[in-house]
Amino acid sequence: MFVPTLRTLAQGTLLLTLPLATSLAMADAAKSVGAAEIAYQAGGSPLAKEEMHQNINPKAPPMTKAEFARASQIYFERCAGCHGVLRKGATGKALTPDITLGKGTDYLKIFIAYGSPAGMPNWQTSGEMSEADVDLMARYIQQEPATPPEFSLADIERSRKVLIPPAQRPKRKMNNYNLDNLFSVTLRDSGEIALIDGDSKEIINIIKTGYAVHISRLSKSGRYLYVIGRDGKINLIDLWMPKPDNVAEIKVGLEARSVETSKYKGFEDKIAVAGSYWPPQFVIMEGDTLKPQKVVSTRGMTVDNEYHPEPRVASIVASHYKPEFLINAKESGKIMMVDYSDLKNLKTTTIDAAKFLHDGGFDSTGRYFLVAANASDKIAVVDTKLGKLSALVNVGKTPHPGRGANFIHPKYGPVWATSHLGSEDISLIGTDPQGHKQQAWKVVQTIKGQGGGSLFIKTHPKSKNLWVDTPLNPDTKISQSVAVYDINNLEKGPQTIDIAGCAKLGDGAKRVVQPEYNKAGDEVWFSVWSAKDKASAIVVVDDKTRQCKSVIKDAKLITPTGKFNVYNTQHDVY
Amino acid sequence: MFVPTLRTLAQGTLLLTLPLATSLAMADAAKSVGAAEIAYQAGGSPLAKEEMHQNINPKAPPMTKAEFARASQIYFERCAGCHGVLRKGATGKALTPDITLGKGTDYLKIFIAYGSPAGMPNWQTSGEMSEADVDLMARYIQQEPATPPEFSLADIERSRKVLIPPAQRPKRKMNNYNLDNLFSVTLRDSGEIALIDGDSKEIINIIKTGYAVHISRLSKSGRYLYVIGRDGKINLIDLWMPKPDNVAEIKVGLEARSVETSKYKGFEDKIAVAGSYWPPQFVIMEGDTLKPQKVVSTRGMTVDNEYHPEPRVASIVASHYKPEFLINAKESGKIMMVDYSDLKNLKTTTIDAAKFLHDGGFDSTGRYFLVAANASDKIAVVDTKLGKLSALVNVGKTPHPGRGANFIHPKYGPVWATSHLGSEDISLIGTDPQGHKQQAWKVVQTIKGQGGGSLFIKTHPKSKNLWVDTPLNPDTKISQSVAVYDINNLEKGPQTIDIAGCAKLGDGAKRVVQPEYNKAGDEVWFSVWSAKDKASAIVVVDDKTRQCKSVIKDAKLITPTGKFNVYNTQHDVY
Repeated sequence: MFVPTLRTLAQGTLLLTLPLATSLAMADAAKSVGAAEIAYQAGGSPLAKEEMHQNINPKAPPMTKAEFARASQIYFERCAGCHGVLRKGATGKALTPDITLGKGTDYLKIFIAYGSPAGMPNWQTSGEMSEADVDLMARYIQQEPATPPEFSLADIERSRKVLIPPAQRPKRKMNNYNLDNLFSVTLRDSGEIALIDGDSKEIINIIKTGYAVHISRLSKSGRYLYVIGRDGKINLIDLWMPKPDNVAEIKVGLEARSVETSKYKGFEDKIAVAGSYWPPQFVIMEGDTLKPQKVVSTRGMTVDNEYHPEPRVASIVASHYKPEFLINAKESGKIMMVDYSDLKNLKTTTIDAAKFLHDGGFDSTGRYFLVAANASDKIAVVDTKLGKLSALVNVGKTPHPGRGANFIHPKYGPVWATSHLGSEDISLIGTDPQGHKQQAWKVVQTIKGQGGGSLFIKTHPKSKNLWVDTPLNPDTKISQSVAVYDINNLEKGPQTIDIAGCAKLGDGAKRVVQPEYNKAGDEVWFSVWSAKDKASAIVVVDDKTRQCKSVIKDAKLITPTGKFNVYNTQHDVY
Repeated sequence: MFVPTLRTLAQGTLLLTLPLATSLAMADAAKSVGAAEIAYQAGGSPLAKEEMHQNINPKAPPMTKAEFARASQIYFERCAGCHGVLRKGATGKALTPDITLGKGTDYLKIFIAYGSPAGMPNWQTSGEMSEADVDLMARYIQQEPATPPEFSLADIERSRKVLIPPAQRPKRKMNNYNLDNLFSVTLRDSGEIALIDGDSKEIINIIKTGYAVHISRLSKSGRYLYVIGRDGKINLIDLWMPKPDNVAEIKVGLEARSVETSKYKGFEDKIAVAGSYWPPQFVIMEGDTLKPQKVVSTRGMTVDNEYHPEPRVASIVASHYKPEFLINAKESGKIMMVDYSDLKNLKTTTIDAAKFLHDGGFDSTGRYFLVAANASDKIAVVDTKLGKLSALVNVGKTPHPGRGANFIHPKYGPVWATSHLGSEDISLIGTDPQGHKQQAWKVVQTIKGQGGGSLFIKTHPKSKNLWVDTPLNPDTKISQSVAVYDINNLEKGPQTIDIAGCAKLGDGAKRVVQPEYNKAGDEVWFSVWSAKDKASAIVVVDDKTRQCKSVIKDAKLITPTGKFNVYNTQHDVY
């Protein structure tokens, strides 16, 4: 009976959408070790060097020091992803005391406990926060935001461990795996990745990593695998080892999302870069040792020429045309093309795009980079050859392309597609300014998916299918299935495939997330993502027949989410 | 009898030097309207929109709200120039509560009242602060530093006034002045500049400006004169008017030092840029209307890869080789080469130099830019053609070159010279990597001046003299005179010229500051800078005979300091 009340409370103003970070937090991670917890536990780590500052606001309800510490921890685990470490707002609303004090504790408690139909999770009724925690958080967000510590290069370096120095690593590939068809699979809540042999579907190794690994990336040669946790920890995995495993690790910040490696000729496997949410900065490292070389802050002006203290680094991609990384600052809406060939005289082209940059990928030629400005409902297009913004394209509500999907549209030629968190729309954007000038950087077609709450869309150059997930849709039937379209007959509408059904897992949420092709482009892998204490699975679908082909189940496959095929990731095939 | 005590207190740790900002504050400006005062008085200005935040520190001695406000004002007028708005320290020591609380009020009072032989001004014994003010400031610096408001582009735009729109301005020069030989003279404490006809020595106009104009710069064509006050106010003066006067004005921040205009072919007179101390950022504007186009923050990492919240913008010069401004961030030690040809896709080369960048100028060819990293005792050399650091040159204690002095050394070829705030040394650096490779970017000779406390050094391509001032030397005889060397016989040592004596002004401090040549290079102008309520003068010396040639006196010439000859400033002749 709460819904009408909440509709009134929400006043239709909260976003109808959730980014991956929150969606992950919505899962059963209540007992897991979150980013902040890890940070506080790590004695001697950069985080331990400075106690979190308790800035008591005399107008706010009182809190003990212990309460403040616990609330800070919950905030960083559950809330910061959407609302920002400094609570200035991003995908979620701003939660600074000038706003929250006026609402009052009772109002805030209801909102936190029951969520809103507009996108705020129902933390108490979902069982993820106790009534006491909700009360704590309602009081906490009326206090001044605590500012977490900075991470200097020296702080980052102190966290680094080289487990196996480059000289002691294999000189050639020492195993018989078909590395091109390996999959790196995030096991979110256990803080691990699983390396799965795409040919045999066998688990090769389960490797300890940071918490909730956000992405896996390959070095240009395909030898090195880089994974980064939400807690800012990077693991470097050498795929040439008899049994691929960690060779180095480092913690780049309190919260992070992105890692990438140099792809340009002459710099293959040489340089890595990681962006962090807090502090808002990126760090450039040696590719094989993770030794930090340079830290660059993203604090500064937004595209509206207003100062923002916390422009978090979202996605990063490596240019194929120049020795450059494309680094996206979320809150400022700026895309930085950073030349890594001379770090002492650092050339950067800062492109004004649109606010709330998040995820994106290249067009099929690798020349153009398309990135979602999610809360601006736009896709920004960068010409990496000319170093300029080509277009800002209006799409549906809160696009979330992952890296998007490239295919040849039968009528409009080459297109790149995105689905949306906030609507059922799938937007197709023309990407061929030479051959299809009229269509270039325009939405040439919008097709309807199963509903909002989509995170990823995928196809493959060898496939005629376009797959769209909807893991965050509130309708269980929709979140447990995916839509698949015939690229040559999009008007026909999708076929719906019950992926969770194939996995036969029994009770639980079982969100179906992230289609990922194998190297050959004839299989699509999906995660069937259950709660931490429930069984999960990976379902492999035959791309041609659209039938479930095999199901990978293992007690060690805890909360699988993102999957990264080595060859496709290495070569930006999507 | 205080000196021994103070020596003990200072423990030899304070810098022996003072930048121009403080030296100006040391003058009799006690009753003048300072930067902060102007800011608070300006209803509707960016500063009025947000009240200064009083962050009471319970461990610090108590202060009333009114006391805090007054102390903030005094701090911004007197202290921020050296110690930083956020009190993180720069030329002066850090004054954050973690340091000041341990010292205690009594210790701090003595230090503020009597200064130190190591460079801290004697604010009470000089009569510039009352005993009550000293007590106030000793308590104030134990409180948490107040963070002043941000200035967005919209804030800056709101302060802009176009007094005469471009369409209503002259289409050609409407006066008979020899504009090339005009001098723009800062009248520091009256918040004005005097335009003086260099031929007739007559005052053409006295123009209302910001407080304590720091520099004057000319547009490429020489038509427009830009002046910037310490309070961040820019005035744009049209020299083509029958009587040259203000045509536009804008306030870019709370505190500022630098303005420059686009010099590259195709951009003549088109673009202006100003850097501010607070907020730490720069703004790019239309050249003829001052309409702000883009604001860029300088907050970020230092050359040591540590975050700094307040890297203030020191000097700015316009490249002759590219459409770029060279912008120096003081605390971070970074030189930003900012390409102004495409503001939406902003290309910047950020060069790691050394901390505490301040002032500098070009070599005689205009290709190399030499800038002092003052508290690092270094000169950084940038190759503006290649966009790279050429060298970091160790010089004497706290170099302060102004824009330096270029001449042909009889033995070492082309050199650029700097004098020092912190020593009597004059360092000559070879600037000809083609013709004199062995000498390039090395100190080829160090000659001795009259003493420390020098601010400016100057020569002219048509002169054989090198002039060095010492206005901040504690010895009145030295601060009132200048040293002049024969470039072809530097070993002979200087002739000392009693400039203040020529002015015949009677009592008072009469600091002699800043040699400036006329266009022909046969006269050198000096300011004889007295207190606000005393007579000042400008003394013109015949460069060949080194004799005083004329003295410009006028009741309206209040506290003259910097002088800028139009032609020499326009063409970087120094």
